[in-house]
Amino acid sequence: MKVSELGEFGLIERLAELLASQGSAAFSDRLVVGIGDDAAVWRENGSAVVATTDTLASGVHFLPDKTPWRDLGWKALAVNVSDIAAMGAVPEFALVTLALPPDTEVEAIDDLYRGLSEAGEAYGVVIAGGDIVRADQPVITVALCGRAGLDASNEPLVLRRGAAVAGDLLAVTGSLGGAAGGLRLLREGKHADTGALIERHLRPQPRALAGPAALAAGVRCAIDVSDGLLQDLGQICKASRAGAVVWRDKLPVEPALAELFGADEALRMAATGGEDYELLFAGTSEQLDALRKQIDVPLTVIGETVIDPACEARLLDENGKAIDLPVAGWDHLKGQS
Amino acid sequence: MKVSELGEFGLIERLAELLASQGSAAFSDRLVVGIGDDAAVWRENGSAVVATTDTLASGVHFLPDKTPWRDLGWKALAVNVSDIAAMGAVPEFALVTLALPPDTEVEAIDDLYRGLSEAGEAYGVVIAGGDIVRADQPVITVALCGRAGLDASNEPLVLRRGAAVAGDLLAVTGSLGGAAGGLRLLREGKHADTGALIERHLRPQPRALAGPAALAAGVRCAIDVSDGLLQDLGQICKASRAGAVVWRDKLPVEPALAELFGADEALRMAATGGEDYELLFAGTSEQLDALRKQIDVPLTVIGETVIDPACEARLLDENGKAIDLPVAGWDHLKGQS
Repeated sequence: MKVSELGEFGLIERLAELLASQGSAAFSDRLVVGIGDDAAVWRENGSAVVATTDTLASGVHFLPDKTPWRDLGWKALAVNVSDIAAMGAVPEFALVTLALPPDTEVEAIDDLYRGLSEAGEAYGVVIAGGDIVRADQPVITVALCGRAGLDASNEPLVLRRGAAVAGDLLAVTGSLGGAAGGLRLLREGKHADTGALIERHLRPQPRALAGPAALAAGVRCAIDVSDGLLQDLGQICKASRAGAVVWRDKLPVEPALAELFGADEALRMAATGGEDYELLFAGTSEQLDALRKQIDVPLTVIGETVIDPACEARLLDENGKAIDLPVAGWDHLKGQS
Repeated sequence: MKVSELGEFGLIERLAELLASQGSAAFSDRLVVGIGDDAAVWRENGSAVVATTDTLASGVHFLPDKTPWRDLGWKALAVNVSDIAAMGAVPEFALVTLALPPDTEVEAIDDLYRGLSEAGEAYGVVIAGGDIVRADQPVITVALCGRAGLDASNEPLVLRRGAAVAGDLLAVTGSLGGAAGGLRLLREGKHADTGALIERHLRPQPRALAGPAALAAGVRCAIDVSDGLLQDLGQICKASRAGAVVWRDKLPVEPALAELFGADEALRMAATGGEDYELLFAGTSEQLDALRKQIDVPLTVIGETVIDPACEARLLDENGKAIDLPVAGWDHLKGQS
């Protein structure tokens, strides 16, 4: 069987099983969150280290001819900041690995590092080291370590995918679909009048403050919207063993999309587009209200978790009827599925 | 200018300068070792986190048709363990990023993870997470976090490239050139009678215990021999602003090499071959004697550091005459230089 048939998520599950038996190391009980969340978490004296890694490969995660190197540097760090934020943690130190064709221009790499630096300044991340290797295509991998506090029982205080309970409300920051719209415009070569959407694709603004604020407000469940809202919500459902419904008319669809692409396509982009790097939370009405007061970005209730043995995430229309969308989300090995 | 003209080390220096201005983050004074050593080090409550990342790209770092996936998994983790050992730290948690062509067989990835697990068990490392992405060629990136203690002044206690002083003795663990010999045999398709050398190339055994033991013995300067002895020693020279001489007749050349390739080529492999993942230390005679008693692997004094404004590492023959070798070492962007 090829990995493309199994898919990214199938492969991750398989590898998690293969690795489940590890743990002979004396310190392995310090690992609190392993494979299968936005980031790993381990205890480190009086706090917890939260660590994640995310890769951008040329032609897969970005269009090489249409992505300025500086934006690429920004994005490579920003997508990792989003994972740390989804754990409710604060990003700190990054390692950057560049795989480069030997004929890459040095000026391009200068620009890439300028973008990395800008994101580092914006999100308070220090680039501490890395590796540079030769490869056929540019691939940028960032590993990012952050920090979380401990709760009263000395357990790391983090947001988990598996912490939702049936009856929680679902709420998402900002707006959805903008990055997918921007990618479409970039592909079609339409730049001038639509800078904001393209900017959402090229320079995502992860919700770094909203994650820790959610923890402070009592929220315990989150994921970042990187692969598409319904797919990412599906990860919460699976990890929490609950179902979820999203109400179509509540979705904060990026306003510019409907006029550019039509209402149906705008909805599809918002529900399945991916790369918005918003945060999706599950919590009580009181928790979400408290969170809303603490952050500068809009927080919209879009649905709720329900009891559902199939653990499905469904999009409902105004009559409560399930809407089937043509595209389910992004799988890095299968592509659009 | 192309990055291949600047080279890996030139590019790293350039990027370190670009990043030198970062540090507006409130915690940036917690970064003790940044770009330019075997690993980064930052303070974390009562200890220090030591973090490194190393990549293996198909066709660059390994021969795809001649490298079993299981060995590749072992090596991907082992080379990172070597970097942590070169800091005198203890490896703990790893993140693994796989870039894979979609037509990769799932069984191959199972094998890769078995190798990673084996190395994890052998070196006490827990694989805590990672990322899987699609790419044209297989590229495996491991980020590894370890831990170091603090000294009496609360400074992280680590081995540094820049801690040598003129008059230190240089000592190396194990033997040199075996991995280069193994790679040659593998390229030439000679397997049966020469398993040990090929094993050195495919399954390096980093000196995980020798690093912390060196710290305990009072040694403060080390690097791992990954790019070739003379080149890696050159990094010590540059960072320590000292010169170094290596005595040809003292080099612990892997014994099998001379018969297979001739004495000259055996010397070249030992001095410049790379990928041996031995540790090279600089310290006093007393410190090195104390270290020798603590470790199971041979420790051979091979030379000394000297006052030299040019900060060169030179190989000397029995008459004290410098030997020029045809190959200077490995540069990941230039290739063999």
